[in-house]
Amino acid sequence: MDALRLADLGEAGLLARLFAFCDRTLVGDDAAVLTGLAGRSPVVTTDVLVDGVHFSDRTTPPHAIGWRAIAANLSDLAAMGAEPIAVTVGLSLPGTVAIDWVEALYGGMADCLGKFGGVIVGGDVTRSPVAVVAITAIGAVAADDSDHFQIIRRDTAQAGDAIVVTGAHGASRAGLAWLLADWPTPDAPPREISDWIAAHQYPQPRFDAIAQLDRLRARDDRPIAGMDSSDGLADAVVQLARSSGLAARLDRLPIPAGLVAAVGLERAIDWTLYGGEDFELVLCLPPELADRLVRSLGGAAALIGQMIDRADSGTIVTWQSAPGRWSALTQAQGFQHFAVESTTAPP
Amino acid sequence: MDALRLADLGEAGLLARLFAFCDRTLVGDDAAVLTGLAGRSPVVTTDVLVDGVHFSDRTTPPHAIGWRAIAANLSDLAAMGAEPIAVTVGLSLPGTVAIDWVEALYGGMADCLGKFGGVIVGGDVTRSPVAVVAITAIGAVAADDSDHFQIIRRDTAQAGDAIVVTGAHGASRAGLAWLLADWPTPDAPPREISDWIAAHQYPQPRFDAIAQLDRLRARDDRPIAGMDSSDGLADAVVQLARSSGLAARLDRLPIPAGLVAAVGLERAIDWTLYGGEDFELVLCLPPELADRLVRSLGGAAALIGQMIDRADSGTIVTWQSAPGRWSALTQAQGFQHFAVESTTAPP
Repeated sequence: MDALRLADLGEAGLLARLFAFCDRTLVGDDAAVLTGLAGRSPVVTTDVLVDGVHFSDRTTPPHAIGWRAIAANLSDLAAMGAEPIAVTVGLSLPGTVAIDWVEALYGGMADCLGKFGGVIVGGDVTRSPVAVVAITAIGAVAADDSDHFQIIRRDTAQAGDAIVVTGAHGASRAGLAWLLADWPTPDAPPREISDWIAAHQYPQPRFDAIAQLDRLRARDDRPIAGMDSSDGLADAVVQLARSSGLAARLDRLPIPAGLVAAVGLERAIDWTLYGGEDFELVLCLPPELADRLVRSLGGAAALIGQMIDRADSGTIVTWQSAPGRWSALTQAQGFQHFAVESTTAPP
Repeated sequence: MDALRLADLGEAGLLARLFAFCDRTLVGDDAAVLTGLAGRSPVVTTDVLVDGVHFSDRTTPPHAIGWRAIAANLSDLAAMGAEPIAVTVGLSLPGTVAIDWVEALYGGMADCLGKFGGVIVGGDVTRSPVAVVAITAIGAVAADDSDHFQIIRRDTAQAGDAIVVTGAHGASRAGLAWLLADWPTPDAPPREISDWIAAHQYPQPRFDAIAQLDRLRARDDRPIAGMDSSDGLADAVVQLARSSGLAARLDRLPIPAGLVAAVGLERAIDWTLYGGEDFELVLCLPPELADRLVRSLGGAAALIGQMIDRADSGTIVTWQSAPGRWSALTQAQGFQHFAVESTTAPP
């Protein structure tokens, strides 16, 4: 028997099924009235994933596509110091898509929200020649002026700040290479490969680090700077330095354990700096607070460098490629979605 | 010389140009922190428009596509009784699209926001085989319990309520028919055709009616019911009746002036009931308040029927097709985006 497809069910039939994944007290009207902000300010972010550009059935089952779509947005909220409240889902799909695929997609979204917070409060489902998943996430952050220190922006780093990253970088890129059957060596897969696949398919927004940070900070502390590393570690450090009018020096790179042995030093460095989609946090904060944060997170964060005056540095970011040997990161080799050919990993 | 295309400019170059249409104090970080709610609750809605499904260069220049995409979302906010605050834009585009087209699209969005309120605070731009515009709008509505009467929902209509519609219905559908060169008669175009084309290309969300309503209502009034007519007048009345556990009777239809003469009674009725995309409001409210609202809006609103107990009616909605002759609207013949063939207008 053929699988049930969207064209068989129609829009009303599909929506009736998708309501099961939504907050029933909030969906079903022209718009959703959000509660639970309790005087805090809303924070909003939007990400769009396109079939064949950002995901593929070749590498990612629909449950993981849904999880990643939500995780990418929640990671942006974490990077602002915000707590997740609600998401809307704008879904465009070909009529030939199986209902099972759509339900698995929503199941992945709901599971990610169940773990990190927030509910689906609305959206739109429509016909399209290609599947496009557009998620908007709304979070909450302290609105009271005296609590503004909780908001994490890109432009508030100071010279002398320590640069802390959560997690390893390049793991998602390694997982993607394996899933694409584009692994660079003929060796047997390293034992870490399942972790790297999980890093690609089920990224974990780092609200745990934000919670630790809120615990360690005092209300009269200065704001810290930060962003997530969705477009790669190099891009994040360049953006933070540029926005804050500073330069940055990276003493060491957060290369995943086992990656150098598996693919060689050069490729491991490339994936760590430019791989992208690790959805970790890159934070600039006073060295003493940085030490306490890294200790409180155990092995889940590391100090990798510091912010310096731009006058002290010829280039915006330098990194130590070998003891005492410093290289320039002249620009972020970020994703160029419209480029005909990309020199970096597919996004 | 060829027009500059997205593939020539790349993502960073395009974003730099689009920032000109955004609120520069809010864009550029991982997410936007919204201000201006002043203790009110956020209200959120999402609509997705797909090239070839919801818009086409054949009928709608990019400036109008941008206007309509924003207007559709703002209309949902108006239908909740909310004031617009901010929008995000999730844009997927082929690399062959001309930069001029994208800037005209954003110009239309900015012009609609300039007229009705709200700013672009963020979004995402990415490559896709087909153009998809996913807009999320965030509004504000009174959060204080004593002001909850301001929120307009679908399920709060009461038997005996008058049904008021703003504007005429079917005008957008008539404009679309003309633009598609699918006009049903060989006659010269009626003099109203430019109004109908404007109704299709530049719909006006009815915040004016909400402002009048807020002026006429007292804080201890009961909440009224309502929604917008984006999926057609018949669909809106059926949804309101169904959500409120009632039936509805329509004494007269808000057919645009000149439409019967131009296309005949039967087609005029069909377009008025099922045409869709007029983005007007359908409100259920006490008869005395309804009278005052209609008077205060001059010719811009009309009383068209009333909500009745479902037990008094064999079908959910009846309408008077000729004096004393009542017909059943057994179901909303709304858009079925996934249907292989649609019996109604293209959405």
